[in-house]
Amino acid sequence: MEVDGDVTRILMGVNESSMKGYPHPSISSRNAFEWTLSKIVRSNLAGFKLLFLYVQVPDEDGFDDMDSIYASPEDFQSMKERDKIRGLHLLEYFVGRCHQIGISCAAWIRKGDPKEVICSEVKRVQPDMLVVGSRGLGPFQRVFVGTVSEFCVKHADCPVITIKRKADEAPQDPIDD
Amino acid sequence: MEVDGDVTRILMGVNESSMKGYPHPSISSRNAFEWTLSKIVRSNLAGFKLLFLYVQVPDEDGFDDMDSIYASPEDFQSMKERDKIRGLHLLEYFVGRCHQIGISCAAWIRKGDPKEVICSEVKRVQPDMLVVGSRGLGPFQRVFVGTVSEFCVKHADCPVITIKRKADEAPQDPIDD
Repeated sequence: MEVDGDVTRILMGVNESSMKGYPHPSISSRNAFEWTLSKIVRSNLAGFKLLFLYVQVPDEDGFDDMDSIYASPEDFQSMKERDKIRGLHLLEYFVGRCHQIGISCAAWIRKGDPKEVICSEVKRVQPDMLVVGSRGLGPFQRVFVGTVSEFCVKHADCPVITIKRKADEAPQDPIDD
Repeated sequence: MEVDGDVTRILMGVNESSMKGYPHPSISSRNAFEWTLSKIVRSNLAGFKLLFLYVQVPDEDGFDDMDSIYASPEDFQSMKERDKIRGLHLLEYFVGRCHQIGISCAAWIRKGDPKEVICSEVKRVQPDMLVVGSRGLGPFQRVFVGTVSEFCVKHADCPVITIKRKADEAPQDPIDD
């Protein structure tokens, strides 16, 4: 019934779990995705298109690189490739789920500060809405709460859906998030 | 196709225009309502139920009461009735639109601080999401921006959609908002 081109385009900022060595989506990203499908898209698959943006953060503290030895410019190149592959695995998860379900999608990677990049991608892509997960108020995470989502609510040029994680969904160890 | 009872329940905090003598919905409330219909509900009318909450603020500055003379407890009673009627006209607008369109709805009035009341109603009613309009960044309105919506994003026990008004939709005189 719905005209092609007249779909609601939902941009989702997704991120990876911080669990080392597991390039899978964070609990918040998966929850935000499943929530969007069950509560907004519902049975109306043809009415929506999901856009996934993964923002790769330049690693400033070097923790991810504990096992790496850099001896030449090529070593840094291989690190960047590895990070890109992590991002691709993450997007593969969401694109795969969308194909299973039968909903139109697109996914891409950008580099930079997530909150700034998400807002500039909103300007560029002009989605109908932006979905951001927020890590909620787990006891170890209070200090990180809402930095990205708060910024996007204020600055993104489209309506923003903030999905907080419930306290009982927070992993015991924040490194597993 | 969808089972009765399995609908997405969307709570909308609505408010009135601050234009004197016009008990009609604010620009932000109407925009948030129309946006929800066109971008989320779309053609899937049976999949959604809209809940409208109007929070009547106790009038602290007395500006609304310039023409009133209070001489007895009954005078205060009549003031309260008048305020209630304003709220009812507001809800009548939204309920009327829903009936036109053919989407299930419910509407009610509560008294108190809007941000606190909205969050306590979320706890009580447990909607799937909360939609709040925000007045955006008009030049005269900066100081009021986002007090209700920011509080709800942080404290409401459900996903929150913040719909900012675009700067060019702000009325020239904030009293017309």
